[in-house]
Amino acid sequence: MPDTRTLHVVSICGSLRQGSLNAAVQRALPELAPADLRVTTLSGIGDMPLYNADLQAQGFPKPVTEMAEAIRRADGVIFCSPEYNYSVPGALKNAIDWLSRVPDQPFANKPVLIQSASQGVFGGARMQYHLRQILVFVDALVFNKPEVTVGQAQNKVDEALKLADPATRDFIGQQLAAFAKFIRRVAA
Amino acid sequence: MPDTRTLHVVSICGSLRQGSLNAAVQRALPELAPADLRVTTLSGIGDMPLYNADLQAQGFPKPVTEMAEAIRRADGVIFCSPEYNYSVPGALKNAIDWLSRVPDQPFANKPVLIQSASQGVFGGARMQYHLRQILVFVDALVFNKPEVTVGQAQNKVDEALKLADPATRDFIGQQLAAFAKFIRRVAA
Amino acid sequence: MPDTRTLHVVSICGSLRQGSLNAAVQRALPELAPADLRVTTLSGIGDMPLYNADLQAQGFPKPVTEMAEAIRRADGVIFCSPEYNYSVPGALKNAIDWLSRVPDQPFANKPVLIQSASQGVFGGARMQYHLRQILVFVDALVFNKPEVTVGQAQNKVDEALKLADPATRDFIGQQLAAFAKFIRRVAA
Amino acid sequence: MPDTRTLHVVSICGSLRQGSLNAAVQRALPELAPADLRVTTLSGIGDMPLYNADLQAQGFPKPVTEMAEAIRRADGVIFCSPEYNYSVPGALKNAIDWLSRVPDQPFANKPVLIQSASQGVFGGARMQYHLRQILVFVDALVFNKPEVTVGQAQNKVDEALKLADPATRDFIGQQLAAFAKFIRRVAA
Repeated sequence: MPDTRTLHVVSICGSLRQGSLNAAVQRALPELAPADLRVTTLSGIGDMPLYNADLQAQGFPKPVTEMAEAIRRADGVIFCSPEYNYSVPGALKNAIDWLSRVPDQPFANKPVLIQSASQGVFGGARMQYHLRQILVFVDALVFNKPEVTVGQAQNKVDEALKLADPATRDFIGQQLAAFAKFIRRVAA
Repeated sequence: MPDTRTLHVVSICGSLRQGSLNAAVQRALPELAPADLRVTTLSGIGDMPLYNADLQAQGFPKPVTEMAEAIRRADGVIFCSPEYNYSVPGALKNAIDWLSRVPDQPFANKPVLIQSASQGVFGGARMQYHLRQILVFVDALVFNKPEVTVGQAQNKVDEALKLADPATRDFIGQQLAAFAKFIRRVAA
Repeated sequence: MPDTRTLHVVSICGSLRQGSLNAAVQRALPELAPADLRVTTLSGIGDMPLYNADLQAQGFPKPVTEMAEAIRRADGVIFCSPEYNYSVPGALKNAIDWLSRVPDQPFANKPVLIQSASQGVFGGARMQYHLRQILVFVDALVFNKPEVTVGQAQNKVDEALKLADPATRDFIGQQLAAFAKFIRRVAA
Repeated sequence: MPDTRTLHVVSICGSLRQGSLNAAVQRALPELAPADLRVTTLSGIGDMPLYNADLQAQGFPKPVTEMAEAIRRADGVIFCSPEYNYSVPGALKNAIDWLSRVPDQPFANKPVLIQSASQGVFGGARMQYHLRQILVFVDALVFNKPEVTVGQAQNKVDEALKLADPATRDFIGQQLAAFAKFIRRVAA
């Protein structure tokens, strides 16, 4: 009996600025996803304090436990993140540092998709391989191919910061369709 | 004419918790350094907000500009950092994300030393190679060898969290002496 | 209906020397594997010429096509490899460079397990993350955890170069059992 | 007294094929270098056997000892290499595996420059960071910036495989001038 239920995945943006190109990619996901994949935006990484084990000892902050629970309930996670200094933004890494310590760690066996956008031609590629190494530790199942790196992203959004470039939209749509199949195949 | 002036370097700890093993390593540096190398602790990464370009547009936070200035004046920087999730702690990465954007970027051509400590046997090694890639972007000159990774660090400190293990102290002392020579050689 | 068929996986050693500690790990796999997992040794990486696209234009060397076919038929691949210069041995990388270009690329969607052994305490860990990045390109599904890094491996084999250390044997056995479950779950 | 002697550096290409785009970059270096920097091509990585410690026990192969000696005598090394499978080509890694074991290891404290070219837009960037990690082990001093990654290199050579694109030639010329200054500054 084929698995035909709708898949629910959550997306997390690695940038905190209003005009983020990665947030523009993230906002486009629901309309680019195939019919069987629903994408919901998770905010909250900007509300987490810097990770500190002494703070943790007093109880996990609410934005952490809420995001952990949302990830746990989801069928998968999509990261849309810029590259800062050839790696993962500190704010996004900080969120993962918190989430990785929550009991019943939410990334374990979770299908994960990585997307990145930048103004340069590389589209954030160097960030992606660092994020992949980080996700080994939390035992996530990271989707491989096709990889989405949106280079010169400032030319691919319109004035309202909507992802407008047809080729990019097509390609992300194809990736999301492949990710949906991946989730059905590998889900625990 | 040989360069005999005293070198001043600053140390930055990647952990924010009181009982940090990496802070224990950091505290030991002044007494382990050779006579011509003075090591001063820089705090402040815990006081920086999560990086956000919109915040930056309002002016750099004071902990950022102060740390940037201290690094600019120093002859070198020592990072003592744990590994979180196989990479650089979010809080430390966040500090670098801020510092990398300050005008007259402080890490450019700056000699840098990386040390890490952990409870496991690897001593934080995976963090070090991510930090090295990050430091390429900011054009730092990272010292190579010997590399210091303090494994099972909880067994190498005393009850007062003082780095007590003689072999570790010796080895760090040797590294600091080699780092001082490196600074004299490569300094711009 | 549960999948109960016997899984057939192949193992590839990254070292060419007779007395290789990684070959010792590799030789132990068949007896450490669970009853439903059969492990067969693949040799041949030492018989491949250095990759050269001009050579490829004349036809793939026989050791390449044979290894590609064996991998294609297998349910999974296990790499047992040393770390050379903080990365994958050139000989093993060369084999992957050839195999990645064979039509009907054999690693695509293939479950892969990485093991490493070394005389130092890290057990080859740095190699593993480079190999993971390489395997993204060929679209392999790399198993995450538990990770096997056999440090001070020279003390864990007997005079006949048989992997003798009970704790290491147990741990590898647990990893192989988890890998068998992973194969059943993610296999295309 | 300023150091005005002519610097002699050697270049090593990571590709073995005749029509290599990286070899095209390599061939252009002598004419793009500043007047005080002489660049000589080193061939030989294609003549080295796959590294095997048992072979090494019989004596280092002649192409290895010759390349080691040429590197030792040089003021610096330039790698021009493609990216294979998101990493360093096996043939080039194999050469480094051999060279790293020669007594009086030739890369120690040696200034190194990395360049890469590819048909895709990334220009081999992922290879560069793996090579940097490898070069930590051999204690080389790797130049940081500007980084040269020649994307879509097939459009930047003429029919005779001469690097013809003016912007690329300019940029490489600037990098070589900066590398020459780096050598004078950091040379042991």
